[in-house]
Amino acid sequence: MNRFAPGLLAAALLAADAGAAASASPEVAAAHLRDEAMAGHSVAHSWVSELTTRIGPRPAGSANEQQAAQWAVDKLKSLGFENVHVETFPLTGWVRGTEHAEIVAPNTQPLVIAALGQSPPTPAEGLVGEVVIFPTLEDLRAAPKGSLTGKIAMVDRRMVRTQDPLGYAQVGPGRYYGAAEAAERGAVGYLFRSAGTDSHRMAHTGSVKFTDGRVPIPAFALSNPDADQIDRLAALGEKVRVRMFSTSSYVRDARSQNVIAEVRGKERPQQIVMLGAHLDSWDQGTGAIDDAAGTAIITGAAKLIRDLPQKPRSTVRIVLFGSEEIAQPVAPFMAFGGHSYADTHEAELPAHVLTGESDLGADRIYALALPKGVAADSEFSKSVFRLLTPIGILPMHEATDPGTDIGPSVAGGVPAFQLFQDGLRYFDIHHTPDDTLDKIDRQQLDQNVAAWAVVAWLAANSDVDFRAAP
Amino acid sequence: MNRFAPGLLAAALLAADAGAAASASPEVAAAHLRDEAMAGHSVAHSWVSELTTRIGPRPAGSANEQQAAQWAVDKLKSLGFENVHVETFPLTGWVRGTEHAEIVAPNTQPLVIAALGQSPPTPAEGLVGEVVIFPTLEDLRAAPKGSLTGKIAMVDRRMVRTQDPLGYAQVGPGRYYGAAEAAERGAVGYLFRSAGTDSHRMAHTGSVKFTDGRVPIPAFALSNPDADQIDRLAALGEKVRVRMFSTSSYVRDARSQNVIAEVRGKERPQQIVMLGAHLDSWDQGTGAIDDAAGTAIITGAAKLIRDLPQKPRSTVRIVLFGSEEIAQPVAPFMAFGGHSYADTHEAELPAHVLTGESDLGADRIYALALPKGVAADSEFSKSVFRLLTPIGILPMHEATDPGTDIGPSVAGGVPAFQLFQDGLRYFDIHHTPDDTLDKIDRQQLDQNVAAWAVVAWLAANSDVDFRAAP
Repeated sequence: MNRFAPGLLAAALLAADAGAAASASPEVAAAHLRDEAMAGHSVAHSWVSELTTRIGPRPAGSANEQQAAQWAVDKLKSLGFENVHVETFPLTGWVRGTEHAEIVAPNTQPLVIAALGQSPPTPAEGLVGEVVIFPTLEDLRAAPKGSLTGKIAMVDRRMVRTQDPLGYAQVGPGRYYGAAEAAERGAVGYLFRSAGTDSHRMAHTGSVKFTDGRVPIPAFALSNPDADQIDRLAALGEKVRVRMFSTSSYVRDARSQNVIAEVRGKERPQQIVMLGAHLDSWDQGTGAIDDAAGTAIITGAAKLIRDLPQKPRSTVRIVLFGSEEIAQPVAPFMAFGGHSYADTHEAELPAHVLTGESDLGADRIYALALPKGVAADSEFSKSVFRLLTPIGILPMHEATDPGTDIGPSVAGGVPAFQLFQDGLRYFDIHHTPDDTLDKIDRQQLDQNVAAWAVVAWLAANSDVDFRAAP
Repeated sequence: MNRFAPGLLAAALLAADAGAAASASPEVAAAHLRDEAMAGHSVAHSWVSELTTRIGPRPAGSANEQQAAQWAVDKLKSLGFENVHVETFPLTGWVRGTEHAEIVAPNTQPLVIAALGQSPPTPAEGLVGEVVIFPTLEDLRAAPKGSLTGKIAMVDRRMVRTQDPLGYAQVGPGRYYGAAEAAERGAVGYLFRSAGTDSHRMAHTGSVKFTDGRVPIPAFALSNPDADQIDRLAALGEKVRVRMFSTSSYVRDARSQNVIAEVRGKERPQQIVMLGAHLDSWDQGTGAIDDAAGTAIITGAAKLIRDLPQKPRSTVRIVLFGSEEIAQPVAPFMAFGGHSYADTHEAELPAHVLTGESDLGADRIYALALPKGVAADSEFSKSVFRLLTPIGILPMHEATDPGTDIGPSVAGGVPAFQLFQDGLRYFDIHHTPDDTLDKIDRQQLDQNVAAWAVVAWLAANSDVDFRAAP
């Protein structure tokens, strides 16, 4: 059964012959794009399968990430995209080494941990310290300077499962700022209860804020069951001592790259609807939901547009960003690939009519926010929702987080839309070894492709000024 | 809501005052035991929580297993059990070392693996070989001698999810016999698709058959998503080469132990109803479902019996077996702890009136098989099912697998009953790092305790000869 089967509207809009339909009005062609996607006729699933299988993990700056970029270039050319090319940029890579941690008192028990991104190695003999548990980052911040000398600080806040990333936003700062706060108070190491909603022995890695160009102390994520175990030992009155070990290292003078491909516009090719996702991934899984899925969704949507008998009026450009995961804040930008793109294309940003980013996995989309300048009762908005309501997508008042990679372009004035994905399962898997192809639900992936194809196509054929003030 | 809420029968059987009820007929007292367990008034959950938290993993022959035995002795004495003692036996321990594996061609990708129990270490530089995939153990057995020289053999059969261990029984031989079959054909290493029903990056370890007193080549379980990945690479036409590394080692002259405790019978204390479960566990999880849960269930049941105002007529004995997991076949026995028990208590086995074992996690019981000598229309059977049907337990025709640990005693003539547990979730977790306390559903654990208390109590108060021929 197809949960997102289009309603009667599709039949009403579509002429009997799909080819004839596609050469008709933009809305009729959009219905055709949607229905092709929903029927599983896009390249999205084969793209995500082949990328995650042939290349596997794609850490920023790694040989695998470069292989992925080359694979994408070859594939995009073979799919008939235009202007396919790579734009490189420098970065410092980070490589996970051997790592392990154990409870060493009151008895010996292994812990499942993962070094947080860009965390330095431990001394060769490892680090041992008593664990001091803080319920939240704010509690750690309230500890006096010097109070953690020689200790391992642990921030223990449990993530709440929510459909949008509200739960993630609440625990994320503990991962990002905790090591620096702990180091300031004398701690020799930092443990963080994973920013994850699962209860598996999987630690969720993720990036840590640099302080003076580095992460100050070794910092590790702890799986939820392991954090529970430390909590229970503490509740039994035990002082818990932990040993942690990591041989993580850095790669100076590495490079990453953005991959770009287009379906050129027929009437106004210099005007661009830009769709983004990121090609890099964390290192322990194969980056299926984060974010091979996003690259598959936007590529699948753009390929359906490319295969229509009629060309879009404006250009549809897809950007597969590099190095999203280890982005560090370079004010006002937050992402290396996104930063590089906005710099390289600065002169062209005013010709970007609209942009959006897919980076929350492959589960279904439930809402769409258009830029504020597009009134809910405008013809454009009504046309979009006539097409998307039958596949379960509701109007959302405003974009809450258009995306990390497009962030610098949005900061440069490009209007953004946001397709809200159901994130209830996403943080079970996010940034763990468990991020693999089997977690992708093909029907939901197809619904994403349908939504992206509809929005990109209608925007590329519209005269709406998405920059207009509300 | 209590899914297993007893029906009206309980109320009918129970007098208004539980204390008064418990001093009445065995069936009324049994209903009281059942209802106490279902109400969460047993020690089962605190037992499994404290054992898995204070001690954690309990590999056979390890210091942790000995600490667990001492903890159990102290706890059983404090709970008021009689004749609490330890019976030790020698064994060779096995210790997991550092281990990892990677795909090294066509590109580099990490694999999630776990050395199978008692597998030897790899050479210090690791082992590299091309993977040859066999759909089943039978396909491997059909390969000619010498055909795998220098290769890594992989048995790839996917486990089917079933309520009883049917699915496990089908794939288990691949784990147990595969390494020897591969070695006979020249393979340098063995990979086995985990005997598990999950799709997480968790490899399921387990024991391997000795050939001439050892496992002949390094043997590893591969997580299901990793086996899928190798399958997909092969389907893309790639030759897959894998590097495997392990520093596993053996501990000669180790020891393990069985822990015994009793509620002594009032009328015929020499007659024994023996309940078994095992205290050891695999090393990566905390052995919560395998088998701290079983020890908690039988201890919880026996403690409820101990706390009744009336004593049982026969003795109820619990045995917490050591070293179940690394048992090797010593004909006709299959388990070290179970073997040691049957040897030590050989003279006493004829006085064991009935036995049963709990070793399939903590999910609900759905059926009970009594020894064949107990007719379905006997008073004993009718009484048992009057009490157990309201908590969702049906009669099963015969025991299919009474248990590994009680196996040698059963082979020695002791009649066995079998309480069938719902195993649908069990093999998602079994023998993985994920076997931790959070996987235990407390209501289902309580239902297990209720069933064990009822069967043990009624058997200890019955005049039925469970050895009688059908």
